[in-house]
Amino acid sequence: MGVSYVGHAYHGWQSQPSGRTVQDHLERALAQFAAQPIHTLCAGRTDTGVHGLNQVVHFDTPVQRELFSWVRGTNRYLPPDIAVQWCREVPRRFHARNSARARRYAYVLLESPVRPALEAGRCGWVFRPLDGSAMQAAADRLIGEHDFSSFRSAECQALSPIKQMRRLEVSRRGAYWRFDFEASAFLHHMVRNIMGCLVAVGTGARAPHWMGDVLAARSRDAAAPTFMPDGLYFLGPVYDAELDLPTHVPTHDWLP
Amino acid sequence: MGVSYVGHAYHGWQSQPSGRTVQDHLERALAQFAAQPIHTLCAGRTDTGVHGLNQVVHFDTPVQRELFSWVRGTNRYLPPDIAVQWCREVPRRFHARNSARARRYAYVLLESPVRPALEAGRCGWVFRPLDGSAMQAAADRLIGEHDFSSFRSAECQALSPIKQMRRLEVSRRGAYWRFDFEASAFLHHMVRNIMGCLVAVGTGARAPHWMGDVLAARSRDAAAPTFMPDGLYFLGPVYDAELDLPTHVPTHDWLP
Repeated sequence: MGVSYVGHAYHGWQSQPSGRTVQDHLERALAQFAAQPIHTLCAGRTDTGVHGLNQVVHFDTPVQRELFSWVRGTNRYLPPDIAVQWCREVPRRFHARNSARARRYAYVLLESPVRPALEAGRCGWVFRPLDGSAMQAAADRLIGEHDFSSFRSAECQALSPIKQMRRLEVSRRGAYWRFDFEASAFLHHMVRNIMGCLVAVGTGARAPHWMGDVLAARSRDAAAPTFMPDGLYFLGPVYDAELDLPTHVPTHDWLP
Repeated sequence: MGVSYVGHAYHGWQSQPSGRTVQDHLERALAQFAAQPIHTLCAGRTDTGVHGLNQVVHFDTPVQRELFSWVRGTNRYLPPDIAVQWCREVPRRFHARNSARARRYAYVLLESPVRPALEAGRCGWVFRPLDGSAMQAAADRLIGEHDFSSFRSAECQALSPIKQMRRLEVSRRGAYWRFDFEASAFLHHMVRNIMGCLVAVGTGARAPHWMGDVLAARSRDAAAPTFMPDGLYFLGPVYDAELDLPTHVPTHDWLP
């Protein structure tokens, strides 16, 4: 299943005793539709306030329904800001997390003297002008396989801090900046910690080569504070093309 | 002042005893910043659930502050989904409503078998395919000066149902339709009632020429039901160019 959600109102993806997470809402809705408990496993857990465009989950169930009935039927029991977008049968070997070759995130950032209203909770905000070339030069230093310990939160449960950053592109449209990330996998808070550093470079507080120093330090103390979650979108996992799973969901064209 | 807001959480623009309108929030924030009551008058009152991009208000005050202090200072007391975008001094003769030569609205509509999640409350939704040429042909019949009584709600307080529709354009990007309205002024529920008719034409339930029949009937009974407010944005008023007031506020580029 592909699932979209606004992260604002939820305590992140992963199930918690409070029941106020996206996974909790999804599993309750699936259980109501299927009339039996269904446990899901996702491609990439998101934090409180982080949004999902094409979060992918898998589950096993003996319940037989038409594929689109799973979509429409589950959506009936979900809050307005969470919606299943598609549903497919997959080979037995498929695993939403382990089969993912990479994950993609985007960060949307408003540069304006005035805070956003329409996009409150849906984009980050800086009131100082940003230097795009400086931010791209800093971003380039993260491309490739590295130990990303400097950008890893204390609560991170990943087995290894070594990840491969395949893409980190800075672009701009009007007052909005966009940062596109693709990596083999992401550590806890990794994008938000990198964003804190990129903004420090963009405002001129740090030089672009400082990003290399932060990376080399392999210590969280070397990096800037964790940036706000508001503008962070989990675009979704990347699977082998032969699985033929949807890679995009409809959104306004500022998000692909 | 130019003000942006998400209409979802508020009982429309106009002040009510409940205090839960955008005007109530704005006037409370202004009073806190200015340390005295300030009464505002707006260019175009919006309904519950309708969003504002560049709503313009005027007020008189003896309080002297730098213009940007009014923006930043007022925003400090406003909820996250309402924000003042700009503030200017205007000539004595300026009146936010009476000086407006026209008003502009946009309606954003998702055509998809699946309901929106990220844009819940921020776009309309139809699950049936729409015919753009048919909708534009129907829209064309509304251009010019007409009696718009067929699209007027019973609660409308306008002195006359005769308005001049200057522009009604249907466009599409991917799964999203956009409808651009410009008229001398709008009656209560006028855009939403026209939208109900356009969608009836778009899905093939009615032929394009039916829009002419609805207009000619000058009776609310002739038109389709009022369409949902979710995708409706008040883009703002149009003033004489010599006033040199901002006409746009930063938004993602799917809204100009």
